[in-house]
Amino acid sequence: MDKLKEYYQKIAKYSSASALLYWDMQTYMPSAASEYRAEVLSEIGSYAFIMSVSDELGNLLKSATPSSEIDEATVRVGLKEYEKYKKIPAEVFEEMLRVSTICEQLWQKAKKERNFEIVEPYLEKVVELSKEMTKYLGYDNDPYDALLDRFEPGMTAEELNRIFTPLKEFTVKVLKGIEKVGKVGDPFEREIDPERQEKFNRWLLTHLKYDSTKCRLDVSAHPFTNPIGMNDVRITTRYVPNDPKNSIFSTIHEFGHAQYALSIPDEFYGLPIGSSTSYGFDESQSRFWENILGRSLPFWTGIYEKFIEVFPEMASYSVEDIWRGVNIVRRSYIRTEADEVTYTLHIILRYELEHALINDELSVKDIPAAWNELFSKYFGLKIDDISLGCLQDPHWYGGSFGYFPTYLLGNLYAAQIYDAMKKEIDFDTLVVNGEFDKVRGWLTEKIYSKGRMYEPKELIKKVTNSDFDSKYFIDYVTKKYSRVYSSNL
Amino acid sequence: MDKLKEYYQKIAKYSSASALLYWDMQTYMPSAASEYRAEVLSEIGSYAFIMSVSDELGNLLKSATPSSEIDEATVRVGLKEYEKYKKIPAEVFEEMLRVSTICEQLWQKAKKERNFEIVEPYLEKVVELSKEMTKYLGYDNDPYDALLDRFEPGMTAEELNRIFTPLKEFTVKVLKGIEKVGKVGDPFEREIDPERQEKFNRWLLTHLKYDSTKCRLDVSAHPFTNPIGMNDVRITTRYVPNDPKNSIFSTIHEFGHAQYALSIPDEFYGLPIGSSTSYGFDESQSRFWENILGRSLPFWTGIYEKFIEVFPEMASYSVEDIWRGVNIVRRSYIRTEADEVTYTLHIILRYELEHALINDELSVKDIPAAWNELFSKYFGLKIDDISLGCLQDPHWYGGSFGYFPTYLLGNLYAAQIYDAMKKEIDFDTLVVNGEFDKVRGWLTEKIYSKGRMYEPKELIKKVTNSDFDSKYFIDYVTKKYSRVYSSNL
Repeated sequence: MDKLKEYYQKIAKYSSASALLYWDMQTYMPSAASEYRAEVLSEIGSYAFIMSVSDELGNLLKSATPSSEIDEATVRVGLKEYEKYKKIPAEVFEEMLRVSTICEQLWQKAKKERNFEIVEPYLEKVVELSKEMTKYLGYDNDPYDALLDRFEPGMTAEELNRIFTPLKEFTVKVLKGIEKVGKVGDPFEREIDPERQEKFNRWLLTHLKYDSTKCRLDVSAHPFTNPIGMNDVRITTRYVPNDPKNSIFSTIHEFGHAQYALSIPDEFYGLPIGSSTSYGFDESQSRFWENILGRSLPFWTGIYEKFIEVFPEMASYSVEDIWRGVNIVRRSYIRTEADEVTYTLHIILRYELEHALINDELSVKDIPAAWNELFSKYFGLKIDDISLGCLQDPHWYGGSFGYFPTYLLGNLYAAQIYDAMKKEIDFDTLVVNGEFDKVRGWLTEKIYSKGRMYEPKELIKKVTNSDFDSKYFIDYVTKKYSRVYSSNL
Repeated sequence: MDKLKEYYQKIAKYSSASALLYWDMQTYMPSAASEYRAEVLSEIGSYAFIMSVSDELGNLLKSATPSSEIDEATVRVGLKEYEKYKKIPAEVFEEMLRVSTICEQLWQKAKKERNFEIVEPYLEKVVELSKEMTKYLGYDNDPYDALLDRFEPGMTAEELNRIFTPLKEFTVKVLKGIEKVGKVGDPFEREIDPERQEKFNRWLLTHLKYDSTKCRLDVSAHPFTNPIGMNDVRITTRYVPNDPKNSIFSTIHEFGHAQYALSIPDEFYGLPIGSSTSYGFDESQSRFWENILGRSLPFWTGIYEKFIEVFPEMASYSVEDIWRGVNIVRRSYIRTEADEVTYTLHIILRYELEHALINDELSVKDIPAAWNELFSKYFGLKIDDISLGCLQDPHWYGGSFGYFPTYLLGNLYAAQIYDAMKKEIDFDTLVVNGEFDKVRGWLTEKIYSKGRMYEPKELIKKVTNSDFDSKYFIDYVTKKYSRVYSSNL
């Protein structure tokens, strides 16, 4: 067992180096260094992969004698991962890494030039390789399940269909209800200099009681969170002059991810159980801090005074005006800027298209047309600019099929967790008073301290005493937005 | 040959990751992450070492068929390194890495608390291991040569003694001559806010025509240069409010190192010839840019207007006043803050002590007393604070015996190179006019483009058409400081 842990900890050190190489690439790296950096990342990533499917690891896993619940989970989760990835031939893995890196680089060019053809041939290869991977990863009925399981263990397309279909109808209904009420004023529709935005964001992190000895905030084109090593998690944000909400909610979102990563027990570090339960669970925490807590009236009540101090031009707005302003619902093109309500439709659209791609029901060349058609159906908006359509997100071009649904699952988990939390702690009062350590304490005890010992469905049941159910999200949205729009939705 | 190069390029990728892990540790890493970071650095460093002494590399080197001068140099330099380090048992290498990492960490504590005993037992081990290493590395007469050769190939203690002894006498004589003249006014004895210091330093880099697509400037406690990867070299500086010269000359010094690293041909990257000729040669370039160019009257003539614009409180000083101010000679405790003249004594003192340590003529416990005695002899100053004495530099504690002399050799090479350069280009005019690309062009052609194809003594002869000689430095110091102090020194 000790040797097994040692081996995992060795792999973790290469993953730590990779994480830093990636973080640096997105934040501080001089521009001319990008080509070589991709080579370094590929070398070290491949080496970590080779170790993670080595016979040595296999033998250690098979001969380990667990003597605690943690050991048992380590071997169980470790064996599952090992058996799964072991089946992928090294050449296929490396080819996927190589092709998807090039494809993601070309995607940036394609997006900038608004030209799908630039990336199309490489995306074809990425889709082909992804389909090939499903054979090695294994599945029962739907090849898509093999890819989805990488991000959300135990989840299937069948279950997603069952959850997403009524959610789509609900969202369309709510959206129509909101639009009947008319527009809410937006205090944030103004230019704010990045310096003051930064000042406020740094204050926000202090207010949220973040630990500056283990975490840091930087700037990148696309905000992200990167656990670099033990006691070291980096988050980024971006300061857009005419969109001050952007930095605030990016920062809180990434702060949520960071809380999770920093609260997994040190003794789990580097082990298969030493990460979040799943991508969906990880997202549930960024979404919990960003939306459920960060866009709540108690939160804005607690920070209103400081907010007006930094942005005196907003002093004529009441705290309720500001709160309504951060909760405006509107049809829009870009997923990452979407509100809590319409976000659902953005994800379902992507899920339906990627599911069709992997099941040979859609070909790569037809993606733009299929996207535009579905977008028009769900949002009633026409897409004239492909960078606002199927070229907006990097996921497919980087080979992450099966990733998108976890964003929506994150919202659903978060609402269910919130419902359980409110029964045990006085959420509103704690949030008004800035006692976030008590909120985090609850989440740590129930979720963060478990690492990846349980699969998502097991954990949600342990945390909330009920099976995973989208009704909590439906209730949350209905109540919250009825209040935001002063209307019975 | 291709396979050999491929293997070296593979090792280089791990070195690139190590370099970034180190740079980040000194610049942006959250404080609580230091323990784990040391483990990651040790793992990846050991792996790179194991590859660099592997049988696989040995076989590739022995069976390679070079077909060009570059290939021949690759195999020659590669074989020399391989044969040398191959003899060190992996356990000894790892033990040295482990012990010296701990010792260097304890040194920081010892320095802070001004207590040599904290670090003494670990320094004993580092010295023991260093002595053991000399047996594996090999030497003719003096075990110190084995350690010195790691930093300055082909150099010996015998030759250092021959060069350093007259240099010591010369320095003491010049210093006395200067002190007879009396003090020069120091326009820099004032507080300057770090913001304006940073503004000026960033402008300086632009003025020096640095390439911001391949290089970046950050802040760290001790300024350093780190080549991270192809087209990626990082430099750091520090902004000390009451010592504005500190950042300016740290920046130019590290800029000099960076010029060298960035001008080695891309095709050498990762190969044994893909670095600077030696530590001394590398230092010759930082010293050339910092002192010979950066503290010259033509340089200050060229930047005077901008300097006064950023620091209007200095407007009452003429360009000659400022130039004298950056060239003040004074006895001082700290090597890194010493002027061009007394720097020589700082190095010789360290060299004599470390030479005695490795030759069993000095024991670790006696270092503080021996240091203080020699310091009193050379500088006439008494040391009451050990952090200004033998605890000021990290080198010994990190196991870098044989490193210090390369700093002084750097000064000597730089003066000899400057002498040759002035015969071929109109240095003063180019520097006044800011045409640094022509200065760099000359250095690139003669030095940087050669990478590590030649040993230091071969290269200095190729560059200057004369054997290595300290007379150029003696001439340079005599002429320059006679002018600075308006006196015949």
